[in-house]
Amino acid sequence: MPNLLNSLTQALRQLPGIGPKSAQRMAYRLLLHKRQQAAALAQALIHALEGVGQCRRCRDLSESEVCAMCQDSGRDERLLCIVESPLEVLAFEQTGSYKGLYFVLHGQLSPLDGLGPQELGLPLLAEILAEGKVREVIIATSPTMEGEATAYYIQQLTDAVEIKTSRLAQGVPMGGNLELLDGATLAQALMNRH
Amino acid sequence: MPNLLNSLTQALRQLPGIGPKSAQRMAYRLLLHKRQQAAALAQALIHALEGVGQCRRCRDLSESEVCAMCQDSGRDERLLCIVESPLEVLAFEQTGSYKGLYFVLHGQLSPLDGLGPQELGLPLLAEILAEGKVREVIIATSPTMEGEATAYYIQQLTDAVEIKTSRLAQGVPMGGNLELLDGATLAQALMNRH
Repeated sequence: MPNLLNSLTQALRQLPGIGPKSAQRMAYRLLLHKRQQAAALAQALIHALEGVGQCRRCRDLSESEVCAMCQDSGRDERLLCIVESPLEVLAFEQTGSYKGLYFVLHGQLSPLDGLGPQELGLPLLAEILAEGKVREVIIATSPTMEGEATAYYIQQLTDAVEIKTSRLAQGVPMGGNLELLDGATLAQALMNRH
Repeated sequence: MPNLLNSLTQALRQLPGIGPKSAQRMAYRLLLHKRQQAAALAQALIHALEGVGQCRRCRDLSESEVCAMCQDSGRDERLLCIVESPLEVLAFEQTGSYKGLYFVLHGQLSPLDGLGPQELGLPLLAEILAEGKVREVIIATSPTMEGEATAYYIQQLTDAVEIKTSRLAQGVPMGGNLELLDGATLAQALMNRH
């Protein structure tokens, strides 16, 4: 196997979810039948690496210093939804039912992994809250131990400036089968019945 | 979603076996946590596209005009194994039990898809056979209708220069469960019992 092909296979293996066999098949397919697409991918990677950074305000991926969403005067700046990853911003946007702004933590508080308040941008969050425009913070961290700890930390920040916070409702997912649902979720759904 | 990120997602979707959701996750992961690997992938793609072509003799992927295997005097040039794809060369090489040379068709005869003898390199194969060095041709096309048609066409080329041909044995795969084997294979295995 030529060395360049080998290097390409190794590089493709670095993609999330691609094993050695898939990487090999991909490398061959790209060089045999998809040379144009391979060249386009190389260009897209280079351009995205050059042009995409993080928004100075919400920390979402952005092509400008402050992202389009943070600059959009049509959005409600009184609402701030705090999420763990840019993929969650996308998920909320796809629902079409949220018109406020976001703040992206890029993780959960996890001191053992070197993720403290600084890494999650919490000083920046405190600055934004201190501006006084935000009236409600929606804490959309994961319902895990680290997620809860992160939410607790953020709650302290909002309490300090007396801003209302809310959490996502927990309960039975749409189309969910009660029989297959875990006990903790079912208990929450029962407690929060309406 | 920034445009460059969108372009990257679209480019990743062109990879075989990657759907829209995976492409999106990949794009985010690459730009957030794997920027170095993303840059390495772009370089590997560019270098491979520049440096990897096809061997003038066996049509396998190669970095030189004639590939390392065709130039290797340690291999038995009296044996020629004809395969449909470079991945099959790799599969044979991994068995370690074949020391002859290869010829890669890059497909099967399929006139409706525009794959005729010319596209499969059969004129080149005829030239190689005419040189008189090859003593046995192993036709390793797939056991499909098109594969059989391709094998039949190659058989005519070898008959014309009176070279012995063989086909891969058909039968029960190692570790195969007879109960789950298709009838045609079982019938072949029974007919060719030894």
